[in-house]
Amino acid sequence: MKRVLSGMRPTGKLHLGHWVGALSSWVSLQDKYECFFMVADWHALMSEYKNPSSLKDVALDNVADWISWGISSKKSTIFIQSDIKEHLDLFMVFSILTPLGWLYRCPTFKEQIKQLEAKEINTHAFLGYPVLQSSDILLYKADYVPVGEDQLPHLELAREIVRRFHFIYNKEIFPEPKPLLTEVPRLLGLDSRKMSKSYDNCIYLSDEDETIKNKVSSMITDPQRIRKTDPGRPEVCNVYSYYKAFLPQKDKEVSSWCRKAQKGCTECKGILAEEFCDLIRPRRENKKELLGDKKKLLSILEEGKEKAHREASKTWKEVKKLVGF
Amino acid sequence: MKRVLSGMRPTGKLHLGHWVGALSSWVSLQDKYECFFMVADWHALMSEYKNPSSLKDVALDNVADWISWGISSKKSTIFIQSDIKEHLDLFMVFSILTPLGWLYRCPTFKEQIKQLEAKEINTHAFLGYPVLQSSDILLYKADYVPVGEDQLPHLELAREIVRRFHFIYNKEIFPEPKPLLTEVPRLLGLDSRKMSKSYDNCIYLSDEDETIKNKVSSMITDPQRIRKTDPGRPEVCNVYSYYKAFLPQKDKEVSSWCRKAQKGCTECKGILAEEFCDLIRPRRENKKELLGDKKKLLSILEEGKEKAHREASKTWKEVKKLVGF
Repeated sequence: MKRVLSGMRPTGKLHLGHWVGALSSWVSLQDKYECFFMVADWHALMSEYKNPSSLKDVALDNVADWISWGISSKKSTIFIQSDIKEHLDLFMVFSILTPLGWLYRCPTFKEQIKQLEAKEINTHAFLGYPVLQSSDILLYKADYVPVGEDQLPHLELAREIVRRFHFIYNKEIFPEPKPLLTEVPRLLGLDSRKMSKSYDNCIYLSDEDETIKNKVSSMITDPQRIRKTDPGRPEVCNVYSYYKAFLPQKDKEVSSWCRKAQKGCTECKGILAEEFCDLIRPRRENKKELLGDKKKLLSILEEGKEKAHREASKTWKEVKKLVGF
Repeated sequence: MKRVLSGMRPTGKLHLGHWVGALSSWVSLQDKYECFFMVADWHALMSEYKNPSSLKDVALDNVADWISWGISSKKSTIFIQSDIKEHLDLFMVFSILTPLGWLYRCPTFKEQIKQLEAKEINTHAFLGYPVLQSSDILLYKADYVPVGEDQLPHLELAREIVRRFHFIYNKEIFPEPKPLLTEVPRLLGLDSRKMSKSYDNCIYLSDEDETIKNKVSSMITDPQRIRKTDPGRPEVCNVYSYYKAFLPQKDKEVSSWCRKAQKGCTECKGILAEEFCDLIRPRRENKKELLGDKKKLLSILEEGKEKAHREASKTWKEVKKLVGF
């Protein structure tokens, strides 16, 4: 069975964007691949170091979501990056053989520096962000990494690092990891701006029914549809884009009732809200149980740590020998 | 008792330059300070990654020299950097909050890149060299670090990192480490070029008597002193500079026999060689014993690892809490 590694940075509560953008594909990857799912807390600290919240608490909260939404600790290995010391060991080895030019040429670096100016991430660690990612992937000798288009250069860097390592130490021990391109529907926030917890325009995976209903009812629809009898234009409606992302099977039906003005926006949003409530409710309750008695959650993470560490230490032993440690 | 940290990179056998430049002052520091002496194997790998020799073997060899030449495992803590995982943990935290500009402004960086061009050290890790040094020092909350003039900017960087850490996390947990300026006599190699193992122009701490005598007899003296009866000029004689560095108490006497042509260069070198033999012999034999039955050496390193780890994990616990891990 081929191996997959993927991670999420514990920067806050998970929302529907995480589900549709990553978590839902993780769930389906579990049956085809041996999956390692990682809480990337070192990566989170790289951009959030100035506002130290409890990364540990966020990590636990996120993992509770993962499990409630279908990640199985029986099928997959769930672990926290900083629990496995070999991530930094291998990172250091890779950092030692990665020319600075490779990192400055990464298109994401300059872009992020500009976008996140207030976070002051023009730092030594942030420049090495893709080097740490390479270490994450290669420590488990992952064959595939689910990525969006924007992350392809990082994966290319990981492959360059593999080739350089093999060349210098004259032994091939790593696979060259390949992308599993995930097509992520572009989802805007409730207010049609970029979805982001800093705009507070998301539906969280743990929102209560009332909250969900209020949030959906606040969504902006086709601004030209003034009366209920006016035909709507789904292609400009943010509510319709949510239907497409979350309920693709209803796509045509919704498009039709909108264009023909068979349902008003309020009713249409009401139906979407109900669907979200039905989707979220059982998982939310499941999560509450997990967080109520943390023992189970902690034992899942302990087990994941052991499994991850077993693999990581195997790889590190090989690397250690080659570099002379 | 104030604390001192110092380290040596295990890049090869130790020679008299190491003794006069570092080891001899370490020996005397032991009575005034609580000393942590570290084999800086991660730092060695940063420049030597393309020629992986056994860093572990070199480390053992060097530590055997340290002990034979007077470093006491009772008084001081002797350990290997890569044995203590918290060096990389703290390094990563510091790397996360160190602006790239601070590192590019370090005068040593560009200079080394130029000097060691063949080693291809224009890498991500090498740029962070002084960040790892900061982690080494601050992990043990060292008050003092013995440094030469050229290393002062690195220590200043460590202090800047301390201040930035304290500012961001609003708690003062580290001392600002201060330099113990060590005046190192500038010592050239036997052939009057820079002393370096790549020129093979050093007297090693483990050289046999015969080797020492041959090496000293090959040294170049005042080229204008052709006949034994010509007066010599100690100020241009490399042999005299060795007397000054190793036997300062004989300084005047040697200078006088040279200027007055009371002794010829061969005799003068013979006396120096005898002195070196007397200095090296008992320590060399001691080292052979240590390396013959490695059990004692390994148990000293095991004990050092435990002591170092006890301190390192205390510091890391504090840091971990502040950054939210």
